[in-house]
Parts: sequence; structure tokens; C-alpha cells
Amino acid sequence: MSKKRMLLKKDMKEKRELINIEIDRFLPRKDEYPKQIHKAIRHTLFAGGKRLRPYLMTNTYKLFRDDIEKTFYIAGILEMIHTYTLIHDDLPEIDNDDYRRGRKSCHVVYGSDIALLAGDALLSYAFNALANAEIDHRLKYQMLAELSEETGHSGLIAGQVVDIESENKKVSQKTLNFIHNNKTARMINIPVRFGCYMANAPAEDQKRLAKFSQKLGLAFQIVDDILDIEGSKATLGKSPGKDEKSHKATFPSVYGLERSRKMASELIESAKELLQKYDEKAKLLLMLCDFVLTRKF
Amino acid sequence: MSKKRMLLKKDMKEKRELINIEIDRFLPRKDEYPKQIHKAIRHTLFAGGKRLRPYLMTNTYKLFRDDIEKTFYIAGILEMIHTYTLIHDDLPEIDNDDYRRGRKSCHVVYGSDIALLAGDALLSYAFNALANAEIDHRLKYQMLAELSEETGHSGLIAGQVVDIESENKKVSQKTLNFIHNNKTARMINIPVRFGCYMANAPAEDQKRLAKFSQKLGLAFQIVDDILDIEGSKATLGKSPGKDEKSHKATFPSVYGLERSRKMASELIESAKELLQKYDEKAKLLLMLCDFVLTRKF
Repeated sequence: MSKKRMLLKKDMKEKRELINIEIDRFLPRKDEYPKQIHKAIRHTLFAGGKRLRPYLMTNTYKLFRDDIEKTFYIAGILEMIHTYTLIHDDLPEIDNDDYRRGRKSCHVVYGSDIALLAGDALLSYAFNALANAEIDHRLKYQMLAELSEETGHSGLIAGQVVDIESENKKVSQKTLNFIHNNKTARMINIPVRFGCYMANAPAEDQKRLAKFSQKLGLAFQIVDDILDIEGSKATLGKSPGKDEKSHKATFPSVYGLERSRKMASELIESAKELLQKYDEKAKLLLMLCDFVLTRKF
Repeated sequence: MSKKRMLLKKDMKEKRELINIEIDRFLPRKDEYPKQIHKAIRHTLFAGGKRLRPYLMTNTYKLFRDDIEKTFYIAGILEMIHTYTLIHDDLPEIDNDDYRRGRKSCHVVYGSDIALLAGDALLSYAFNALANAEIDHRLKYQMLAELSEETGHSGLIAGQVVDIESENKKVSQKTLNFIHNNKTARMINIPVRFGCYMANAPAEDQKRLAKFSQKLGLAFQIVDDILDIEGSKATLGKSPGKDEKSHKATFPSVYGLERSRKMASELIESAKELLQKYDEKAKLLLMLCDFVLTRKF
């Protein structure tokens, strides 16, 4: 492993532990009544996710300010929202995936009824935690309004729906972009945007970093599609080959494997270019870009 | 039909139409892309529900102020939350009910995947609509915090979970109360409480009306349980006998039919007593209490 990659790995681990402490602190205890739902919520939330979205938020904030601990609470909320989408995605209704983050999916352990409700509970809880956040009122509103829009019918869910509708169909590049921009890129854009908001970043930087996150988000999804073909359950932590089996719209299915790889690589290059102006401060974000491209899980 | 009942029926119809116009106004169009999800959302939302929760909110507000049109927006949001719970409840995972509000359930028409996402979308959209409401900031926060708590893991969902866990089991009165207080009474209490908030009702009235809604909510659920035994699909708009078939914890199964009827009747009597001080202004709420007790659907 290169020195850079080791540094990134160490830093991601450190931040992940801090975020986990924060999430654990504000989440209901697992023995709270009724126990089943609280255990189910924690099952997927603490199944060893990469905490990529919190990490992105914290490191975006770090471009402008050093007191990164101020981002942990909101970063934890974003991870809760992300986890809610994973639990519902894995349900037999949608992707029917028995593995997630290397463990049995929530519905396999707790049943589909409890898993469905665990996802619902996480979504309500995320908004509840945000409504109770001790931050500037104006900022809180903006985040509440944006988060509820991005996760809703014209955002995340629109991507999900078109993804479902596109199964077993030949899809256009436009449709593929729609799916991935909504289903994945949005939840990569939000942490970057919220990191800017919290750091009170200048408008010009917000614009640049929005472009950055757009490219990173798309690259992330392309690599996800490639890993679904090439990865193994041991490295992925979820079942590989699912997209192919269910004839999902993926970058490799539309552009071919080679061109998909090239696209991801080009997106990452231009994402990195957008970070140049931040020099040393963007060191970890730059490493994260490389990680997104070369990751095996 | 008695004169009182006719007056109530007419007023409920009028208010229902006004609420429906409001919901229609702020909800995404049914031909918005992707169409499926937007049609699915509207399918259950406009399937002819009683709009009991909005009606309760509006009439609570009316005890203190006359400009009831100010409540319609928030009342519409409560109906969206209620509808999200219905769509998820009806899914094969949970109650597996093919009929709702006299029409085929959302998942029967649009598939379980789209129905699941339609519920998710409604929950996000309800919070989005509330975050964007043009009302006093403090009040908005309070409602956001309370609504996300009441619908979450320690509220509505706690009731749902214990309901599921109690199937095919002999439950105690304590457990039955827990289920119904959380699963049903909360969504009856909220409209009354929010109506008070919006009207800026004195603390003493808020306390009295909280007691009122607690009694009304419990009576509502007892009657629901009785109707599940005695009703028909034609009048109920949903499949009767489901509770018995799935051995759900109900008032008749714990207390017997006769005692359950008596309990509902006593609860309604004491709910009505709590309204005495409002005289003529509580006329419609008083009629609504009788309606909750004697309704056939």
C-alpha cells in the first residue's frame, strides 16, 4: 500500500470512529422498548460502513475551518439518511439483497416488516435530529428544506423509480445519467454542500465544490457499477453480480467496461483539478478521489 | 339521518374539498417525471379519505379563531403523513391489505416497490412542505420537532412494531394500550395540538384539549377494532376481518365486544364533557365525537 493510501486509511478510520461515537450518542439505545426496532436500526447503521458521506462533509469543511468536530452531528444525520436508503433498497420489494456492508441485511435478520419500519424510523429520526440541531436557525431551515427535497420524489426517489422502471430495458445515456445523478450523486453532493454551508464558505467556492462533488458522485457510481461486475462478496460486503442478473441500467451495460473505466478516471481527474486551489488543505480530499477510483469495495 | 348528522356531513364535505384543493396545489403533478411515483402518491391520497385529521385540526383552531383557512396547509401535511402510514401498512410485509379507502391499495395497482417508495416520498415531502411553510419560525421548529418525533421510533413506529410483535399472542391491557396510543391516538392528538398552536390557544386550553384528543383517539381505535369485526368491505373501504384472521391485538379480543363498546361510549362522553366550556363554538367537534362513536366506516 502506498504511503498516501495508508495516510488516508488512517485518517478515514479516525474520523469514522468519531462519527460513530456521535451517532451512537444521539441514537436511541438498542434496549429501548420496543427493542426489535432499535436493534434493527443499529444493525445496519453500525455494520461497518465507510462513512464516506460524513468524511466528505468533514473534509470539505476543513478546506475553510479547522474545528471539524462541529460537523459531526450533521454528518451523522447524513449517514442515517444514507442507511435508511440502504435498508429499503435491500428489501425483497426492491433489490432483494441479502448482504450489506459484509453482514446479513436488516430484513434477513429482523424480517421485512421490521426492516421497512426501521428505514421509516431512520428517516423521521434524521429530520428530528436536524430540527433539534443546535445551529443557526437560518442554516437549519436551509438544510431541512434541501435535505427533505433531495431525498424526496424529485430527488433520490425519482432516481430509484427510474432505476426500477429501466430493469430489463435498453436505456439511453440520458436515462442512465438521470438515475445515477439522482440515486447516488445527490447524496455525494449534499455532504459537500452542507460542509460549505457550515464553514460559511464564499459563494465562489461553493460553486466550485458543487462541480467537484458532481464529478466525484458520478465517478463513484460508475466504479460501483464496475465493482458489481468485477468484485467479490468478500471485498464488496454485498452480493456482486446483482445488477447484471436483474438487468439493471449500469454504465458498463450502456458504455461497455473499458469506456466506463475511462469515464470514471477522467471524472476523477477533473474533480481533482477543481481542488488545486486549496493546496495542502485539500490533501485528504485528493487522496479520497483516488480512493473512489481504485477502491475494491 | 338526524339533522345534526346531516349538518356534520355537509361541513365535513365542505372542509374536505378545501383541504383537497390545498393538497392538490402543493403536491407534485401526476404527470411529473417519473410519472409512476407521482401517480402512486396521488392514488392513495385522493382515494376519498375522510380527512378526519385535517378536520380535527381546523375545528380545534376554530374554537379560538375564525380564519380557519390558515390551517389548511399544515392540515394537508398531516394528511400526507397519515397517508404514508396507510401505504406502508398495507404492504405485503405488514398488513397485506388489498383495499384501502374503497379502492385497490397502492401496491396492488403500482407494485410493492413503487408503493414503498411512494410512502417514503410522502414522508420526505411532508417534512419538506413543513420546512417551507410560511409561518412563524419558532412555531415551525416546534411542529417539525414534534411531528418527526411522533412519527418516529418512539411514536407511531413503536406502536406498529409492538402491534406486529403481538400477533398470535395473548396481550396484556398495558400492551394493547401502548399499541393504540402510539399507532393511532398520536395522529389524533397532533392535529388537535397543532390547531391549538396555530391559534395560539392559552396553555390551560391546550391541556384540556390534549386530554380531549387522547380520549377521542382511543375511542376512534376501539371503534375501528369493532368495525373490523362487524363491518363490510362496502362500508369500510378496506378488508374487514383482517385483525381476527391475523390474530391482532384488539380491544374486542382483550375486553370482549360488549365491554369495548361501553369503553368507547364512555370515552366519547368524557371527551364531549371537556368541550362543554366552548359552547356553541364546539358544536361541530361535539358532533364529530358522536360520529366517531357511531360511524360505520
